Amino acid sequence: MHAIGVDIGGTKIAAGVVDEEGRILAQTRVSTEPDDASSIDRAIAEVYAVLSRDHEVGAVGLAAAGFVSPDRTSVLFAPNIAWRDYPIARRVGALLGDDVPIVVENDANAAGWAEFRFGVGREATDMLMLTVGTGLGGAVVVGNELVRGRWGMAAEVGHMRVVPSGHYCGCGHEGCWEQYASGSALVRDARAAAISRPREAAYLLDLAEGVAEAITGPLVTLAAQSGDALSIELLADLGRWIGEGSASVAALLDPELIVVGGGVGAAGDLLLKPAREAYAEALPARGHRPEARIELAALGNEAGIVGAADLARL
Amino acid sequence: MHAIGVDIGGTKIAAGVVDEEGRILAQTRVSTEPDDASSIDRAIAEVYAVLSRDHEVGAVGLAAAGFVSPDRTSVLFAPNIAWRDYPIARRVGALLGDDVPIVVENDANAAGWAEFRFGVGREATDMLMLTVGTGLGGAVVVGNELVRGRWGMAAEVGHMRVVPSGHYCGCGHEGCWEQYASGSALVRDARAAAISRPREAAYLLDLAEGVAEAITGPLVTLAAQSGDALSIELLADLGRWIGEGSASVAALLDPELIVVGGGVGAAGDLLLKPAREAYAEALPARGHRPEARIELAALGNEAGIVGAADLARL
Amino acid sequence: MHAIGVDIGGTKIAAGVVDEEGRILAQTRVSTEPDDASSIDRAIAEVYAVLSRDHEVGAVGLAAAGFVSPDRTSVLFAPNIAWRDYPIARRVGALLGDDVPIVVENDANAAGWAEFRFGVGREATDMLMLTVGTGLGGAVVVGNELVRGRWGMAAEVGHMRVVPSGHYCGCGHEGCWEQYASGSALVRDARAAAISRPREAAYLLDLAEGVAEAITGPLVTLAAQSGDALSIELLADLGRWIGEGSASVAALLDPELIVVGGGVGAAGDLLLKPAREAYAEALPARGHRPEARIELAALGNEAGIVGAADLARL
Amino acid sequence: MHAIGVDIGGTKIAAGVVDEEGRILAQTRVSTEPDDASSIDRAIAEVYAVLSRDHEVGAVGLAAAGFVSPDRTSVLFAPNIAWRDYPIARRVGALLGDDVPIVVENDANAAGWAEFRFGVGREATDMLMLTVGTGLGGAVVVGNELVRGRWGMAAEVGHMRVVPSGHYCGCGHEGCWEQYASGSALVRDARAAAISRPREAAYLLDLAEGVAEAITGPLVTLAAQSGDALSIELLADLGRWIGEGSASVAALLDPELIVVGGGVGAAGDLLLKPAREAYAEALPARGHRPEARIELAALGNEAGIVGAADLARL
Repeated sequence: MHAIGVDIGGTKIAAGVVDEEGRILAQTRVSTEPDDASSIDRAIAEVYAVLSRDHEVGAVGLAAAGFVSPDRTSVLFAPNIAWRDYPIARRVGALLGDDVPIVVENDANAAGWAEFRFGVGREATDMLMLTVGTGLGGAVVVGNELVRGRWGMAAEVGHMRVVPSGHYCGCGHEGCWEQYASGSALVRDARAAAISRPREAAYLLDLAEGVAEAITGPLVTLAAQSGDALSIELLADLGRWIGEGSASVAALLDPELIVVGGGVGAAGDLLLKPAREAYAEALPARGHRPEARIELAALGNEAGIVGAADLARL
Repeated sequence: MHAIGVDIGGTKIAAGVVDEEGRILAQTRVSTEPDDASSIDRAIAEVYAVLSRDHEVGAVGLAAAGFVSPDRTSVLFAPNIAWRDYPIARRVGALLGDDVPIVVENDANAAGWAEFRFGVGREATDMLMLTVGTGLGGAVVVGNELVRGRWGMAAEVGHMRVVPSGHYCGCGHEGCWEQYASGSALVRDARAAAISRPREAAYLLDLAEGVAEAITGPLVTLAAQSGDALSIELLADLGRWIGEGSASVAALLDPELIVVGGGVGAAGDLLLKPAREAYAEALPARGHRPEARIELAALGNEAGIVGAADLARL
Repeated sequence: MHAIGVDIGGTKIAAGVVDEEGRILAQTRVSTEPDDASSIDRAIAEVYAVLSRDHEVGAVGLAAAGFVSPDRTSVLFAPNIAWRDYPIARRVGALLGDDVPIVVENDANAAGWAEFRFGVGREATDMLMLTVGTGLGGAVVVGNELVRGRWGMAAEVGHMRVVPSGHYCGCGHEGCWEQYASGSALVRDARAAAISRPREAAYLLDLAEGVAEAITGPLVTLAAQSGDALSIELLADLGRWIGEGSASVAALLDPELIVVGGGVGAAGDLLLKPAREAYAEALPARGHRPEARIELAALGNEAGIVGAADLARL
Repeated sequence: MHAIGVDIGGTKIAAGVVDEEGRILAQTRVSTEPDDASSIDRAIAEVYAVLSRDHEVGAVGLAAAGFVSPDRTSVLFAPNIAWRDYPIARRVGALLGDDVPIVVENDANAAGWAEFRFGVGREATDMLMLTVGTGLGGAVVVGNELVRGRWGMAAEVGHMRVVPSGHYCGCGHEGCWEQYASGSALVRDARAAAISRPREAAYLLDLAEGVAEAITGPLVTLAAQSGDALSIELLADLGRWIGEGSASVAALLDPELIVVGGGVGAAGDLLLKPAREAYAEALPARGHRPEARIELAALGNEAGIVGAADLARL
């Protein structure tokens, strides 16, 4: 059975027809208005109309950046889109005309599921996905099942606390993992180093034309790839936090695979090697157990579409 | 179907016939020798012979304090019993005579499962069990399934790291949760207070006849129940660590229930109230989600027997 | 001998004639331009001319918010005023006409010295001054001498590290004391609580007319004085960090008095009581030593003038 | 003027005649009984008699491992010797016959003072001494003066807190610097690594003949000098804690020199290089200030004798 997956972003939606092997057969995208929930509904109906014209579609999956109700029909709350207890499946259903099942999933869950089913995790049964972008999101698969939690809020990995009295987080708490293992953390650490370690930061500052505020994550990665010692150290620190936090998750869930996705993954082994070392050092009962692999995500930006479509079929 | 559950301790085994409602219909116990694995096998055969005489038994579940293989037939490693890659199901099976299925489970998993099926968690679908005894053990239930992990090592909650560079742990790492949320932690903190805060510790020291080393967990609980301010504070600190750590687990798994078992539970609300407050304060996305309840375990020492029996039936 | 003390702020200077008992006999103030160092020199000359008309003056002391050279003639660096290796004593001297000695001191040192000589520390020999304002500044007196350090940079108390991997600081480091014990820390914690603990923060948010960003330090103090539980807790946390950090300083310097000044001091015992308790609990070798008192500063905004004048006389 | 310095250990005293250049002209030692304070008094009288026979002696300085009264006549408390408010100067004076001035100093202060006057610090004015042995002791010199504090308890550097909720310390607190920067910390970390990182610890375990408990500080240093990666890392961690803690002290006192003494100093640059790097990284206002040097102590075991003698002369 083919399904349509829709990845709903703040300002555009991307959608595709996905077959049972996770291949995208056709794809389209439309601009939307984040402050107007009904405009998003209409946009989804529009892409459905376009894609279902040439393809027989048995289900529609929506990947939404927000908290999704346990029955997978509504978005309870979204930080960047005007959804508050919004029955999106029903609203979109009313616009489609067809009587096709529609399910909503959290976007990080959808992307993680795609990785599990068709990407680097396709041989695994128990997997942790970490999406290391601006923030730190994730997905958890236990015994071949996506973990949604009792109220659909599972896999908020970025808000596990790793440092008591640690960095402030936008969530109102201190020491959240995403304040140490994310692109934002990398950028802030790099800018801080420009102040506290000006000599070591000279190359990075050069790249940023002397403006600390112009240092970005890709710039740090670029500098590290050119051999800049500070940038290598900054990525290694980030990798270390990824590895150490993953070891805590492994104490709880014993996965066989930890997948690192998101923009920061571009740093490759500069990130992964320190992550693996830190994971191995921090893993409980090491030596008495097999050790999970830590790998880069294999799928790209379409993971949300693919995962949402596949989850809609289940 | 009735099943026999066997809880294998260091120096004795306790076994019972358990019905499908989790009731123990008959019970027995035998002494054993932890350094001699085959004596344990024989003791299990012995209790099986006794219990199966008057009861029709469809399965045998063994609760073992160690790492259990994913296929639930062997103990990979045990800290206190002479099991190293030990095929206990096969060895016991050879002694029984009957062709009854035998499965092994980690003892904390067995106890947590009993609590989930027949105890305080019987209405829940997603649950975290914390056994706060000398150490901190646990069990995790996700979507009505016990989480064993890829290699059977899940739910080692006590070794999630909560403080970087924190207290040394016997596992060779620093800052493990069980160094902050366990009976041992309570005792060490109480003894440390006897040194650093002698005035506040006067009552506790009196109870211990002036010997800091004689302060125990039950003594602290007793003193707290008598209104001793320091002891109340020590239990509240312990509760706070339970609550804060649970909030990190909740970020990952979104359970609806957190069960506190083990000897420290005797402190009741002196422990639970601070745990609940700390949990609520530390929970991510609070206000946008329902909050898990934190409750005391309902079953007593027989939980291991009941859980092992029930898991053997599945 | 009378001396003139000049407190140089970003946008104005305040100056006074100070007698040997620390009394201000005459006082004046002038607006200045922080981006123009020479305008500040001229303003100082101006207030000198005014004040020295009616008073015989033997020395001039300048309190400057910046790093001061060990010979007390120059400002090496100031965060908010255009001084970079600026020989302020010589420049001002050239404008005065009179051949009066001019010395520069760090402004926090000057204020702490005033407190030591004429304020709450006038009976003490060893004192730590903490100025808890937007940031955390201070002064250290050891054996009746102001501690300037080898290069004039001592008493940067706010940048002692109290939490590894802790809050980011503007200085480029993590976990600086001033990120936990300052008015800014209080405000950020209050705003964070408005997000993570909306129920408890209701009263505070009411006072701020519903806008978390409108919560200020004085507002928290006001709410605490009205009995608001969250605000009382926030001030107690701040007090605790003051007390615990002071205990580390006491391990090093064994002062008899710790003086808390700055705007946050307005909270009085709501701040001081938790500070004293935390100090006592955290003090090494407690019970084997006398314990320093923690007291509020006795002098007000003129402390800088008084201290600068007195230090110029020495 | 020549003076006698006496270094009083738990089981023996070492004494010498010291000239004004810090040279030891004659030396002797006697066994003592730590549980009998008067036997120590008599032993001191005995060495005085021996040494003063051939040398004209103007003062006697006693270096004592304990808290010394501010008037330098008594030991208030000692952890390992039977001194409780013990007027040692008066007691010894009564036995000497001669009317020679006797002063007591804390032994770490005495050793630090020797280093300041005649060792690596002889050109300095502001110095921090760190004695990294089993524990972490120290001495502080500010403006050419030894800092004793208001009650003689200054320079308890080892009990500054560097990690909230960190390692337990024998003093009853958590996170004391000496739990991270001492020979004991090194040994515990090495033994922990033998458990949690058995592969990397193989060489170290070999040296210890397979017994983790047989790993010692000198063994780690030896292994590091042979190129063992784990041992190098362990010493670097220790160095890092020395450097980072020193940066906090530097924020407060701005010394020009930090001296590392004690047994761990034998590791030389394996310890000092990471200490210097960590210090530089953690130093506040770096780039706007000169940076203290971190050097090994130049004097050996006689530093206590030399410092006690010199301080008695002042």
